[in-house]
Amino acid sequence: MVTPIDPTSAAFLLAENRSMPMHVGGLQLFKKPEGAGRDYVRQMFEEMRDVDEIAPLFLKHPHRSARTAGQLVWRPDEQFDIEHHVRHSALPKPGRVRELLELCSRLHSTRLAWERPLWEAHVIEGMRDGRVAMYTKTHHALVDGVSAMRLLASVLTTDPDKRGMPAPWGATPERSRSGKERAKVETPLAEVPTQALRTALGITAEAAGLPGAFIKTLTKSVRNETSALSLHAPRTILNQNITGSRRFAAQDWPIERLRGVGKATGTTINDVVIAMVSGAMRTYLSELDALPDQSLVAMVPVGLNAKQSQVASADGGNAVGSIMVQMGTELGDPGDRLAAVHRSMQDGKEALSSMTPVQILAMSALGQAPAILTPMLRMQGIVRPPYNVIISNVPGPRTTQYWNGAQLLGTYPLSIPINGMALNITCTSYDGDMCFGLTGCRRTVPHLQRLLTHLDDELTALEKVAGI
Amino acid sequence: MVTPIDPTSAAFLLAENRSMPMHVGGLQLFKKPEGAGRDYVRQMFEEMRDVDEIAPLFLKHPHRSARTAGQLVWRPDEQFDIEHHVRHSALPKPGRVRELLELCSRLHSTRLAWERPLWEAHVIEGMRDGRVAMYTKTHHALVDGVSAMRLLASVLTTDPDKRGMPAPWGATPERSRSGKERAKVETPLAEVPTQALRTALGITAEAAGLPGAFIKTLTKSVRNETSALSLHAPRTILNQNITGSRRFAAQDWPIERLRGVGKATGTTINDVVIAMVSGAMRTYLSELDALPDQSLVAMVPVGLNAKQSQVASADGGNAVGSIMVQMGTELGDPGDRLAAVHRSMQDGKEALSSMTPVQILAMSALGQAPAILTPMLRMQGIVRPPYNVIISNVPGPRTTQYWNGAQLLGTYPLSIPINGMALNITCTSYDGDMCFGLTGCRRTVPHLQRLLTHLDDELTALEKVAGI
Repeated sequence: MVTPIDPTSAAFLLAENRSMPMHVGGLQLFKKPEGAGRDYVRQMFEEMRDVDEIAPLFLKHPHRSARTAGQLVWRPDEQFDIEHHVRHSALPKPGRVRELLELCSRLHSTRLAWERPLWEAHVIEGMRDGRVAMYTKTHHALVDGVSAMRLLASVLTTDPDKRGMPAPWGATPERSRSGKERAKVETPLAEVPTQALRTALGITAEAAGLPGAFIKTLTKSVRNETSALSLHAPRTILNQNITGSRRFAAQDWPIERLRGVGKATGTTINDVVIAMVSGAMRTYLSELDALPDQSLVAMVPVGLNAKQSQVASADGGNAVGSIMVQMGTELGDPGDRLAAVHRSMQDGKEALSSMTPVQILAMSALGQAPAILTPMLRMQGIVRPPYNVIISNVPGPRTTQYWNGAQLLGTYPLSIPINGMALNITCTSYDGDMCFGLTGCRRTVPHLQRLLTHLDDELTALEKVAGI
Repeated sequence: MVTPIDPTSAAFLLAENRSMPMHVGGLQLFKKPEGAGRDYVRQMFEEMRDVDEIAPLFLKHPHRSARTAGQLVWRPDEQFDIEHHVRHSALPKPGRVRELLELCSRLHSTRLAWERPLWEAHVIEGMRDGRVAMYTKTHHALVDGVSAMRLLASVLTTDPDKRGMPAPWGATPERSRSGKERAKVETPLAEVPTQALRTALGITAEAAGLPGAFIKTLTKSVRNETSALSLHAPRTILNQNITGSRRFAAQDWPIERLRGVGKATGTTINDVVIAMVSGAMRTYLSELDALPDQSLVAMVPVGLNAKQSQVASADGGNAVGSIMVQMGTELGDPGDRLAAVHRSMQDGKEALSSMTPVQILAMSALGQAPAILTPMLRMQGIVRPPYNVIISNVPGPRTTQYWNGAQLLGTYPLSIPINGMALNITCTSYDGDMCFGLTGCRRTVPHLQRLLTHLDDELTALEKVAGI
C-alpha cells in the first residue's frame, strides 16, 4: 500500500545529498548483566533481530512513483530483510572508545539508500572494558532527535530483572497491548515517532509547505537587527560548505558538577552547558588561529509553555522555540563567559515571551529544520546562517534503565551537520550524567575530538571560578 | 572532467536494482608475516588507506548530467574520501570462518551508491586463527572478475621480503614507473582494469549496443535444439526471481586431489570441478525434495584460441566462449556423473570449434553478461534462461604470493546472482589450491553453506570411484 509522504518528511528527503545525509543517530553503551556468557552480545543481537513483527514505520521506504507523477510516496518494502537493518559488528583491537567513535563516525557518514527502509542498528562488541555498544541510524524523515530518544526510552525499563523486552523497531502484540495500557500516561508506542514528528515538526511542515509569505516573515524576524534576537554571527571555519565525511566525539560529565557551578553562580544547568561549549570553542579555534574577535552565536532550542506555543501546538504537544545566544567566546575569563551566556539566555527568553505567535513560529521553524530553512534563507538574500553552532539539550530518562537485564550506561546523540553549520552539539541527560554528542564534518572541523578535552578543561575552570 | 560511459558499463549500471547489485567481490586471506606486532592489522589497513595517489578508475563515479540530456557519464568525485572506501573492520567472537562469511555476505548484499566511486575494501581482523582477511567490492561497470583478479595479482609479489608495495587502487609514481618497466611482459598496472574490461567485455559492449539483428542471431543459436549446444534446462528453485539478500560460502581443496581424479579417469580438472558441483547440487536439491528428473545445465565459460576468437578479440586480448554442460545430476553414481560431464564438455568444445564467428560471439556474450542478456532474451520470447547455474574458473597466480610480507593463503571470488540465476559458483586456482566461492540469494537458495559439505563429500566419492 502506497501512502503519501508529508511535506516535512519529503523536504528532509529532498534536501539530502551526498554531503548532507539527513539521518539522526544514537550511540548507547550497555553493561552486560551479571553472569552474562561469552556469547552475550550475539544473543543480544539475535534478540534485536528476531522480532516477531516490525513496526510499520520501519518497513516503509520512499519511492518516486510514475503513477503519482513523480511525487514521493512511502511504499512498504516487499523484500524487507531484517539482516540488512540489524547488524552484529565488532571493534578492531584494542577496542578503546577511540575505535568505537571511529566506527560510529564511519557508519554515520553513509547515506541510507531509498530503496530500503531508512534505518540501521548495529550491535557492537569488542570494547576492551567489556561494555556493549549500539549505534542506531534513522532518517530524519521518520524521526527527529527527540522522538528517537522517546522511542528508545519506550523499550527500556527500570527493572533490571525484566526480560522479553522488544527492540525499538518491534511491533509485537505484547507491545500493542502494553501501549494501550500506558495510553493514559504516554503515547502508544507504535505511534511514538509519527506522533512526535507531527508534534515537534508540525510547524516546519507548514514552513516547508509555505515558502512565500511565511518565509518573508521569517527572514524579517531574523533580519530585525534592533531586537534582542538580532544576530551578527561572525564567519568561522564552522560556517562553510561541508562534505559527507563525519567525525563523532562523545563524553559525559556528572550533572551534579554542572548543577554545582550553576548554584554557585546563579545560572542554569543549560547555561553551564553552553558556557562549557563556549570555552571549548574558544580554545579550539584559538589553537587553529581562527577565533573571531566577535562572539560566536549559538542557536539553542528551548521549550515553550502552552501560552507561547498556542500556534505551534496544533496537536497538543510541546513546541520548541529558539534562542540565539551570544556565547562570549571573545572573553578571556571563564566566569565572564558564563555570565555573558546567562545574560544572553535571559534576554532571549524575555524576547521570546514578548514575541508574536508568528515570530515564535518563525524561530521554531528555524530551530527545527535548519537544513531546510538555510537554503530558503539563502534564496531570500541571507547568505550566511545567523548563528555559528547549534547546541541542543534533549532530556532523557532520569533513572537507571535496562534492556533485558543490560544496564544502559550512557546515550549519546549523533546529529546532522549541514552546509554552513559544520558542527552540531547535542546533549542528552541520563541517569545523573550529561552526555555530549559532537557531530561534525571531518574536513571542515579538524581534530573535532580535541573539543572533548577542552570541554573537560572548561568545566574544571568553571568550578574553580565558582569556588568549588 | 566528465567522460562518457561506454555502453557495457552503462548497461551494468542500468541493469542494477535493489535485488541485483552488479558488483563483483573478492575475499582474500593472509598470514601475518613473522614477528608481526599486535598492531599489525591496523598497520596493514593504514598502508592500504594511505596511498599517495588513487588510480583514476577508483576516483570516478557515475552521474546523470542534465547537460548531456540525462545520459550517464563518469565524473571525478570532488569530495573523494578514502576513509569511506578503505575500512578497518573486525569479526564478532568467536571469529570463525562462519563469522567471516556472514560479514562478507552482508557486505556483498549492499549496493554501491552512485554518488561515490564504485568500490570498497575492508581489512578485517578478529579471526581466531590469527589470519587477516580482506573483502573488496567493485562495480562490474569498472571491472569484471578476471580483471579484478589481475588487478589484485598486479600488486602481489613472490618475494616475502619485499615491502612498500602499493594497494590495488593506488597510482603512485613508483607504480607508473614499474608499470613501464613491466610493459613487455604484462599490461601496465594503471591500465589493467580498463584494458581488461575492453578485452573481456568488448563483445558484450556490442551486444548491449546492438539488440536488433545481433540478438536475433543469439536467440537463434540458443534455440537451435538440434545442435550439440541446444538446451533444455529444467526449472529448479535456483531459477526464480531473486532478492537483494546474499549468502556467500567459500572453501578450497588441493588441486592435486582434483588432478588425481582427472588422471585416473581421463578427465580434466575442470571436468572434476563441474562433477563436484553436480554431485553437490544433486544432494542439496534432493534434501530439499527439489531435484528435477532431467539433468541440470551449467553454463561454463571457456577460453577460445586465436582462430576461434577472431571476431571477439578486437583488442588482441583473450576471448571467452561458453559451453552449456549437461551436469548429469539425474545419475546416482559419482563416476557416471563425471563421465557425463566429460562427454558434455567434449561435445561443447567440438561444437564451439565448428561454430561460426557470429555464433561464438553470441555464446561469448551470453557468458559474459547474463545479467544484461537475460532480459533481452526474455523480450525475444525466451522465458527461462537456458541454463541452471553458472560455473566459472578464473585462473589465479600459481605460486605463493605476498603483499608487504603477508602471505596470501587463499582468494575466493564473490559474484553476481541475477533473476533466474540465483546461484553463481566461481573458482580461482591459487598456489596449488582450487578456491570455490559460492554466491547466492539467501532467500532463493536456502542453507547455501551446506553445498560446501556436499562438495567435499563429492570429491571424496570421486576419489573412491577413481580408486584413489
